Amino acid sequence: MTIVPSSDKKRIVIIGGGFAGINLVKKLAGSNFQVVLLDKHNYHTFQPLLYQVATGGLEPDSIAFPLRKIFGRQKDFYFRVAGVHQILPKENKLITDIGEINYDHLVIATGSTNNFFGMDGMQHNAMPLKSIPEALDLRSLILQNMEMALVDTDNHEAYFNIVVVGGGPTGVEVSGALVELKKHVLPNDYPELDLSKTKVWLIEAGDQLLKGLSRNASDKSLAYLQEMGVNVMLNTRVGDFDGVKLLYDNDKCLYTKTVIWAAGVKGAYVEGLNKDVANTSSRYLVDRFQKINGYNNIYAIGDVAGMIDEVLPYGHPMVAQVAIQQAKNLGKNFKAMDRGAEIFPFRYRDLGSMATVGRNKAVADLPWYSTQGVLAWFIWMFVHLMALVGFRNRVIVFINWLWSYFSYDRAIRLIIRPYRKMKK
Amino acid sequence: MTIVPSSDKKRIVIIGGGFAGINLVKKLAGSNFQVVLLDKHNYHTFQPLLYQVATGGLEPDSIAFPLRKIFGRQKDFYFRVAGVHQILPKENKLITDIGEINYDHLVIATGSTNNFFGMDGMQHNAMPLKSIPEALDLRSLILQNMEMALVDTDNHEAYFNIVVVGGGPTGVEVSGALVELKKHVLPNDYPELDLSKTKVWLIEAGDQLLKGLSRNASDKSLAYLQEMGVNVMLNTRVGDFDGVKLLYDNDKCLYTKTVIWAAGVKGAYVEGLNKDVANTSSRYLVDRFQKINGYNNIYAIGDVAGMIDEVLPYGHPMVAQVAIQQAKNLGKNFKAMDRGAEIFPFRYRDLGSMATVGRNKAVADLPWYSTQGVLAWFIWMFVHLMALVGFRNRVIVFINWLWSYFSYDRAIRLIIRPYRKMKK
Repeated sequence: MTIVPSSDKKRIVIIGGGFAGINLVKKLAGSNFQVVLLDKHNYHTFQPLLYQVATGGLEPDSIAFPLRKIFGRQKDFYFRVAGVHQILPKENKLITDIGEINYDHLVIATGSTNNFFGMDGMQHNAMPLKSIPEALDLRSLILQNMEMALVDTDNHEAYFNIVVVGGGPTGVEVSGALVELKKHVLPNDYPELDLSKTKVWLIEAGDQLLKGLSRNASDKSLAYLQEMGVNVMLNTRVGDFDGVKLLYDNDKCLYTKTVIWAAGVKGAYVEGLNKDVANTSSRYLVDRFQKINGYNNIYAIGDVAGMIDEVLPYGHPMVAQVAIQQAKNLGKNFKAMDRGAEIFPFRYRDLGSMATVGRNKAVADLPWYSTQGVLAWFIWMFVHLMALVGFRNRVIVFINWLWSYFSYDRAIRLIIRPYRKMKK
Repeated sequence: MTIVPSSDKKRIVIIGGGFAGINLVKKLAGSNFQVVLLDKHNYHTFQPLLYQVATGGLEPDSIAFPLRKIFGRQKDFYFRVAGVHQILPKENKLITDIGEINYDHLVIATGSTNNFFGMDGMQHNAMPLKSIPEALDLRSLILQNMEMALVDTDNHEAYFNIVVVGGGPTGVEVSGALVELKKHVLPNDYPELDLSKTKVWLIEAGDQLLKGLSRNASDKSLAYLQEMGVNVMLNTRVGDFDGVKLLYDNDKCLYTKTVIWAAGVKGAYVEGLNKDVANTSSRYLVDRFQKINGYNNIYAIGDVAGMIDEVLPYGHPMVAQVAIQQAKNLGKNFKAMDRGAEIFPFRYRDLGSMATVGRNKAVADLPWYSTQGVLAWFIWMFVHLMALVGFRNRVIVFINWLWSYFSYDRAIRLIIRPYRKMKK
């Protein structure tokens, strides 16, 4: 890889342009380091709104932002589209798609990936929702199934059941959006189908939705979903899914063509470090300065980092705020190290959590205030608009939201690249 | 295919949801026919703006519109996503992806497809620009080539040459947009590359650009492109393209990874009719009532129809206006036939042609007026905005145009699905 090393600066290589990666790069602007960012894509994905892409509410292009544009002409900064295959820690080197690259400091900010807990059928047949291509595939599949239901009239039950597995924020938000799609949009498109028979299911293994949030938020989100017509099943464990039959509670089953997997994620582990540096969720065990146990110049931040202690036996929640704050603190510490100044351990400032369930219906736990309903919904929209990268994206998302609100429509119901199951 | 025939109405089946197809369906609203529309996609594509999707200026979703939404709940109308394999004219039947369907009247409105004039290498390696997936592939390829140029430093010439073949409206518009991308956008993204070495080539076999337009428009578009830095080669015939080397003028060659094919189209012929019903451009020979020669209940409209006489030896130009007017006239005639009233032959009312070359630069030949420059550019934008289907699309396109105008930016430079050459 042809990036000329700087003669007088150490090089920091960052893997991953998610919330953690981009905030670290920004923080290092004007520092005494050469900074190299690697990502498989040339854009940053605003993951919290992926479910709206999947349900036809937003263009994919308005929640993605070109990585090169974020950093403009930041000095001594280099970006490359590259997947990383392996870390060679003894040689301070990475092996990537596009050749090898040396580092002085390495920061792993690869985020998280789906965890199917070893269920092969689920992995092959369920639809995950972690990336833009996955969201587009889900959008296509939902529409293709409606088209197929017109032709293949013997299997209506399977086409008409949509099952969401996992009652965290993604599961709650996507099942709310799906039931609104079913209620307000699909009946106009498919007058030939009896869409009153379509059902959206939300299956959660635990005894409550939105487990990380307050009891109020959790109860209210359940009430909202039930009121909107989602069939919520708590305390229910799913088994495998063969593409038509989803097993649950050992011996029961649902016939469905569409299972959306929002039940588990794990760290997006990169090969090459000692086996014992990651926990069971594939998160790298780091100290309070994000340094991976047993390494001197390798760090992890964001979802892939597990900062574990007595208070947090599983590490911090895998959310954007943790990633952003860890990135900023690490950036500050890099600069301090360079000056020989004191470095500070990471301290998480919880700014709250929220989830939107549907039109005028959201739940928000803020540090000073907890609310549900219209106000929470406005707060949710405002916070997400402001968090989007790029002014153009904010305007486009805002207009789409206005449009959907007043028309009850989800305008972007296009099957641009039909979804076809790949052999895995 | 499970569409129940109407007991007292004849069924008209229309193949293709382009400008011709959708206008015919609309015209038949409230008529005494059962109407069935088939299309491979579930959306209508606004082809005139595809080049802006390819060059990062517009989201694909804003120039596509769900077909089902266009017709709302039009009575006794049915839409199916289906590709048509064959017409069985003796049985008044079609064979499609999703089964067989009978018709009383059949209207072929399949539009046009790329004509590579038998050059296999060109067909395999060049990038066409007739559909949304093709436009997205071209967008990805342009950006992937820039990323590759950073890594594969020995082949800069091939990455830096972009060649457009064909000097019609698509060729002129896309080469103008590419040279603006090269000038205003890419240098910010790729400060490491010497982009002054990138070249946009436009190759045309004839002695002028925009052949269908006035001499003024043609000359002015050439002057604009040259002023903007496009290398225009007139009277130049391309040979084949192997993916790296584009032959031209028999023995010369250009090294390039990107050839955009805008040089030839032909009718999108459907199998099953007599061999002699189409001309050399695969357009069905029709009479002035759109009826295909030798058939009594099979019609063709739009690009795929060749209404040929002494004045128009090649038929009407393959443009949206012809398609729309033919569809409306045929729809009127169907209704008249049903009433036993007089039917009218098609008469083309030329509303003019226009093409945009770049910022503030367009050419417009209107029936009463011909103009070039800023005014033509405004007219072009206004006409295209108004012709877009759907209010939301108009707003989103308008905002993107405003954004591009003031920022000199093409914001949507995302490689969402990397382009990989398929084996054909």
